[in-house]
Amino acid sequence: MLGFSIDEAVIAGHNRAQSKALDAGYARLCDQLAERDVDVAAVESRLASLNIAVPSWGLGTGGTRFGRFPGRGEPRDVYEKLDDCRTIWDLGRLSKSVSLHLPWDEVSDYRKLRLYGERLGLAFDAVNSNTFQDQPDQAHSYKFGSLTSTDAAVRRQAIEHNLQCIEAGVALGSRAITVWIGDGANFPGQQNLSRAFERYLDSMKDIYKGLPADWLLYIEHKFFEPAFYATVISDWGSSYLAATALGERAKCLVDLGHHAPNVNIEQIVARLAWSGKLGGFHFNDSKYGDDDLDAGSINPFQLFLIFNELVDAGARLGEAFQPAYMLDQSHNITDPIESLLISGEQVARAYAKALLIDRTALTQAQDANDVIAARRLLMAAYETDVSPLLAKARIDKGGAADPIAVYRDSGYRARKADERPVSAAGPAVRQSVL
Amino acid sequence: MLGFSIDEAVIAGHNRAQSKALDAGYARLCDQLAERDVDVAAVESRLASLNIAVPSWGLGTGGTRFGRFPGRGEPRDVYEKLDDCRTIWDLGRLSKSVSLHLPWDEVSDYRKLRLYGERLGLAFDAVNSNTFQDQPDQAHSYKFGSLTSTDAAVRRQAIEHNLQCIEAGVALGSRAITVWIGDGANFPGQQNLSRAFERYLDSMKDIYKGLPADWLLYIEHKFFEPAFYATVISDWGSSYLAATALGERAKCLVDLGHHAPNVNIEQIVARLAWSGKLGGFHFNDSKYGDDDLDAGSINPFQLFLIFNELVDAGARLGEAFQPAYMLDQSHNITDPIESLLISGEQVARAYAKALLIDRTALTQAQDANDVIAARRLLMAAYETDVSPLLAKARIDKGGAADPIAVYRDSGYRARKADERPVSAAGPAVRQSVL
Amino acid sequence: MLGFSIDEAVIAGHNRAQSKALDAGYARLCDQLAERDVDVAAVESRLASLNIAVPSWGLGTGGTRFGRFPGRGEPRDVYEKLDDCRTIWDLGRLSKSVSLHLPWDEVSDYRKLRLYGERLGLAFDAVNSNTFQDQPDQAHSYKFGSLTSTDAAVRRQAIEHNLQCIEAGVALGSRAITVWIGDGANFPGQQNLSRAFERYLDSMKDIYKGLPADWLLYIEHKFFEPAFYATVISDWGSSYLAATALGERAKCLVDLGHHAPNVNIEQIVARLAWSGKLGGFHFNDSKYGDDDLDAGSINPFQLFLIFNELVDAGARLGEAFQPAYMLDQSHNITDPIESLLISGEQVARAYAKALLIDRTALTQAQDANDVIAARRLLMAAYETDVSPLLAKARIDKGGAADPIAVYRDSGYRARKADERPVSAAGPAVRQSVL
Amino acid sequence: MLGFSIDEAVIAGHNRAQSKALDAGYARLCDQLAERDVDVAAVESRLASLNIAVPSWGLGTGGTRFGRFPGRGEPRDVYEKLDDCRTIWDLGRLSKSVSLHLPWDEVSDYRKLRLYGERLGLAFDAVNSNTFQDQPDQAHSYKFGSLTSTDAAVRRQAIEHNLQCIEAGVALGSRAITVWIGDGANFPGQQNLSRAFERYLDSMKDIYKGLPADWLLYIEHKFFEPAFYATVISDWGSSYLAATALGERAKCLVDLGHHAPNVNIEQIVARLAWSGKLGGFHFNDSKYGDDDLDAGSINPFQLFLIFNELVDAGARLGEAFQPAYMLDQSHNITDPIESLLISGEQVARAYAKALLIDRTALTQAQDANDVIAARRLLMAAYETDVSPLLAKARIDKGGAADPIAVYRDSGYRARKADERPVSAAGPAVRQSVL
Repeated sequence: MLGFSIDEAVIAGHNRAQSKALDAGYARLCDQLAERDVDVAAVESRLASLNIAVPSWGLGTGGTRFGRFPGRGEPRDVYEKLDDCRTIWDLGRLSKSVSLHLPWDEVSDYRKLRLYGERLGLAFDAVNSNTFQDQPDQAHSYKFGSLTSTDAAVRRQAIEHNLQCIEAGVALGSRAITVWIGDGANFPGQQNLSRAFERYLDSMKDIYKGLPADWLLYIEHKFFEPAFYATVISDWGSSYLAATALGERAKCLVDLGHHAPNVNIEQIVARLAWSGKLGGFHFNDSKYGDDDLDAGSINPFQLFLIFNELVDAGARLGEAFQPAYMLDQSHNITDPIESLLISGEQVARAYAKALLIDRTALTQAQDANDVIAARRLLMAAYETDVSPLLAKARIDKGGAADPIAVYRDSGYRARKADERPVSAAGPAVRQSVL
Repeated sequence: MLGFSIDEAVIAGHNRAQSKALDAGYARLCDQLAERDVDVAAVESRLASLNIAVPSWGLGTGGTRFGRFPGRGEPRDVYEKLDDCRTIWDLGRLSKSVSLHLPWDEVSDYRKLRLYGERLGLAFDAVNSNTFQDQPDQAHSYKFGSLTSTDAAVRRQAIEHNLQCIEAGVALGSRAITVWIGDGANFPGQQNLSRAFERYLDSMKDIYKGLPADWLLYIEHKFFEPAFYATVISDWGSSYLAATALGERAKCLVDLGHHAPNVNIEQIVARLAWSGKLGGFHFNDSKYGDDDLDAGSINPFQLFLIFNELVDAGARLGEAFQPAYMLDQSHNITDPIESLLISGEQVARAYAKALLIDRTALTQAQDANDVIAARRLLMAAYETDVSPLLAKARIDKGGAADPIAVYRDSGYRARKADERPVSAAGPAVRQSVL
Repeated sequence: MLGFSIDEAVIAGHNRAQSKALDAGYARLCDQLAERDVDVAAVESRLASLNIAVPSWGLGTGGTRFGRFPGRGEPRDVYEKLDDCRTIWDLGRLSKSVSLHLPWDEVSDYRKLRLYGERLGLAFDAVNSNTFQDQPDQAHSYKFGSLTSTDAAVRRQAIEHNLQCIEAGVALGSRAITVWIGDGANFPGQQNLSRAFERYLDSMKDIYKGLPADWLLYIEHKFFEPAFYATVISDWGSSYLAATALGERAKCLVDLGHHAPNVNIEQIVARLAWSGKLGGFHFNDSKYGDDDLDAGSINPFQLFLIFNELVDAGARLGEAFQPAYMLDQSHNITDPIESLLISGEQVARAYAKALLIDRTALTQAQDANDVIAARRLLMAAYETDVSPLLAKARIDKGGAADPIAVYRDSGYRARKADERPVSAAGPAVRQSVL
Repeated sequence: MLGFSIDEAVIAGHNRAQSKALDAGYARLCDQLAERDVDVAAVESRLASLNIAVPSWGLGTGGTRFGRFPGRGEPRDVYEKLDDCRTIWDLGRLSKSVSLHLPWDEVSDYRKLRLYGERLGLAFDAVNSNTFQDQPDQAHSYKFGSLTSTDAAVRRQAIEHNLQCIEAGVALGSRAITVWIGDGANFPGQQNLSRAFERYLDSMKDIYKGLPADWLLYIEHKFFEPAFYATVISDWGSSYLAATALGERAKCLVDLGHHAPNVNIEQIVARLAWSGKLGGFHFNDSKYGDDDLDAGSINPFQLFLIFNELVDAGARLGEAFQPAYMLDQSHNITDPIESLLISGEQVARAYAKALLIDRTALTQAQDANDVIAARRLLMAAYETDVSPLLAKARIDKGGAADPIAVYRDSGYRARKADERPVSAAGPAVRQSVL
């Protein structure tokens, strides 16, 4: 790791100082769960294997179209981003993998980058392509679309970029590519909605052909933005149509912020899981649109209900059901490391609570149409304060009892601010506001 | 027809009185369209073949859960509903078929009913089943679902009802059944979302087996209500999954009021048309939820954009593309006959305007990403006042130049109020508030 | 109380059987709160004084415009409704008052009714008028509005009804009237939006004049339904304009289900509290529209955030700040008594958690723009499982440790089903679906 | 004007070439309106006095947080923006004034700028302050708010900036300032919602004190973005509270894209007009959020309904009712000049149609609750193709019959692309994406 890192002894010291309170809290929770005949060890075992990837672009300060307020000590390249990921892993022990974004994270030598990551103990998750922005040296503009452009040369360029992403991913040891495009129309009439979809399928078929046999292709839909009238892949229905047209290894990815208002996201999760097309998640939270707020910050109950579906699907579908988890947030006013630590914890919290649901009793209540009993079973799990369980899981894996406290005490950000002086240009806004 | 009917001589007289103004308006429009090289005869020919079914339940006054304010002279049985349909046909010449709803329109002899309809010059459109309400003599309640109930006996009852609807429809000369269910959950946990969907498919497969070879089965999705947390068939994605699982003759039906806020409905139309699963429409309009307001009353531009997709799909898919059109509105404060007349006209208006779009120029503008030119082409068509064309089409088929004026002058409603004294019980609210 | 009631000895027996587990849970919680320096006694004292009124119409099974599935043993008149209220009070100890609705609860002798309620230990909360439905004997119809009708006679009738409600309320010992109207328009053009508002103000001024000096008038706004294009009092802004125009004793009432999608309700609460116009609440929950689901069932975090504002406002405004609390839910598929018990508990839970927020630290974090610290303070309170505190508060006041369990064991509903045979007509749908 | 401008002879030539078709179209429309007894001259006179300001930031290409795709020949400073405004005025004759944004349009000598504008025949509309972005030389950051910051120094800086805007505006001959802030919170707990509002009022009072006696202060609310959990001035209710607290000359400004989904904007217009607080408009259109699309491009009927309210309010309130009109759009994929020309025309179209409504008949229909008649009166006006009237109004004032055609034929943009070579840095994204 470049420059300052938080010593594991510091973490251990922190944990020791809190150990009495932690033990007491954990004991109280175990007592409570024992009354409900919960198999705590089984829950802990499943929690221990949870991984939630960090997106490389989440490590810088995000912004809105109205501006960006940079923070101190932001990583200036992918190596520094990996350093921050390692810090998140050291403290939170929930995010061992990182998801890169090309060309934002472009390097000349991906094997060297892979080695660097491996030395930090990190893995490389799905790679993400970018055909929603123009790069300085680009032959054709994506102003009017990329994979769906009416211009074959533009489509070809976008396809090639995706194939290059796969190539980079292979070098990094990734096993999947996530394709999100901003293609669409801002005005009625601008685009033939059906022909745009057909061009999308044609382009995606070319990308799919380039997919290694052990890779998955994730299709990410989005309700709107940057296209403001019609987005080519705007909902799970379109995503499913496309994934089906492409083949077995094409899956649908659910970003929590990419839906119409009021939509029941957990039901979409259930439908996609049922159809065998659920690829994974981009976790975040929102109140209005694609707000990209920290996961579990606005509607934690919804996150719990999503994990209720995931635990249920896992029970029905078995080992084959392995959706990929990633955080995808825009940290506009918080320290990205703090937000990612808390968000990972919120995801783990939702998962832990979902694991506490008495599923046998729930099925009985459902079959008997005992609505009140079913609600109470969910509420009993949801209202349980699983914080001690989460802390225990972290500590058992070498993480911090209180990651935020350790992080703040360590002075990490201030140290990085010194180590990473911002150049005149600074990180381009467009690299941080996804 | 039972009792009073509007004499065709009255209509003819009205039309004569307006003929000078009508001719002038029509001439002006033709001049305008000639400047744009529009083939008016071709447009008129397509308009002439437009049929928009009337739903039998739309002929009574609707209401909300807060109450119903009945109107005068409402039809008391399906025969009287047919009489009102005939009046609508006589005046508007857009709705030659009627869609029945069982058990609301249940009769002991469907052949006799068919004969009655045929004598009125009406055809019988898709039949609609009802498993969202309990009937007095019903063995099992649908309180907790029908086709998706956890109780096999309930599902069986609901399946049988649908099969009986098909049987009645066969006797009536219908060629399709529309299945809409209210099944779902009001609370998280109440229902296993995946197993409910599986039960739905199982039940629907039994219904599909009973479908005559020349029939279609329309699946109607609805975002919410009466289920308030999760609806089993809540969106076009679920509808498509189900239609695909069932087979060729299962199609998706789009009700304009059954979508999440802000959803781009014309894009859903495009996706379903592209996938070969677009069955038809329930036209209405809304501002908030499933408001069931008169078609084209809140957002006429959206209706135009939907017909833009339909004309486009027709051009690509050819004769095989024949979606079914129906109005599905709740007439809470207007005379249902007036609302249905105006709504039919609004649908025809949107269709006529969509036919005026210069599609060759539009494709050129789209291919060239000339957004402004594409917008202007749509606007040129949309801003055209096609009222004279619609009046001409009506008159040419024997209808009224101004259906509302003739209807009001005729005193039809007052006459029916005399002929149809309301019994103590009156038409049950539940029969009119769909 | 008429017929069967749950004996307090039965409750006591239940509580005894669970006392060991309850004590253990309570002790664990106290340990946890002691670590955070929470003054548990102070929280308990405030919880003890919480009252959440029950609406009389909530005691019957509700429905939607698509139908109603009645439950067993529903109360057939206001006396039987009071009996059910007493049962809710006996078990839950959160709802000591009941809010009547006229003419649904009309009786010939309100003093007798008051006596009956007092003997049951119940108080009479705000009275609710009804000018959104026509009553059989009514001179003028509200089909086109009531207080805002264009017809002076209709407005007069609606005003008189409200004055009679006040009169009945005076006899009952109520201290407030809640006015909700469904007035509005279904179509653009139907209503002059400004003149309708002026007529509303004129009518309300007449009602306000009839208000006793120690009464409050609550104005309840609603985004839509039954009016589907424009509702006269559709948002808090209109409500505020009206309350200001009327005078000091006119206040705004917030129903959680009466807002546009995504609206930040807790901010509306803050604005109304700040302006001195927050009168009270109708608690419920919803996912789509005015779903009238059980409070805290869909988004419990939102309920917590609302109470965060209420606790904050109370701290700033002092004793004068006394908003009225009521549940307003439609129990379509659950036993109303069970739903009201659980909903009351969810409201109390949100309040209890809001009382646990460390407000001094929160203010410091806010002033320092330490967003993460502020979030963590809220989450620490929200994630606390306050169930033992709620149970303790109930038991201390003589209620049941587990109200649902006692209720079910008692066989109350079955007994009432015997005692309350449904007449042929049954309770009219319209009386239960508010 | 700097460099190339479109010669008025060119415009005249274009108009002459179309004069026969134009005359015919106008004659047809006059015939049609004569049948309805419309006073065409009166309509034309009101149309002739319509002015819709152009915002200086709308002249560059906008973007989203995902990127910006610059166009050719964008203006590089406020002088070049004025040149483009002049071109818009020359062609469209609807937008004679321009609204500046500081510091984006900051110059050292505002009198010189005013002179330049006056020589172009342009006037300076409301000035707009900017405290939602940090400027390079700024002492304090607005990351956590500006006028509502918890830090008095930040608030003071933001107040001073607004006072400087007023000063610049005075020099320019403006008569109003528009204050929009992005202040709010991204997370529950981050901000004390009431105290933030109080700080807003305190800051605004200081600005209001600096307002010249003949100036107005427009408060612009926005539902969300850049704040994603709570925005301090998020709705018309908050805007009204603030405007009332400030005084007579504080008014509410309605941006069409700044509302919750499904909200009835024309009703808000009616309420604000009624209360005397309607200051003006930012016109644009949207389908999802604050999409900032071209006015009238997504829901032209809504724009018509808004003008229906404005015409109605004008009739009731008389000359004193003079709301300010401005376009506020983000031109991401179109030539800004073309979008502004079309948008101005769409606003004028909505106004013209609203002027065609037979208000006497409408009032009669409303008073008689003849819903269908009222709808038909609105539809008759809305369906009228007023294009010839708009063209006539333009030509009469010296503009182009077809502004887009003339603009394209002139080669204006290509000429400007030559005259305005883009520097390395280019116009900062943040200056164009409002």
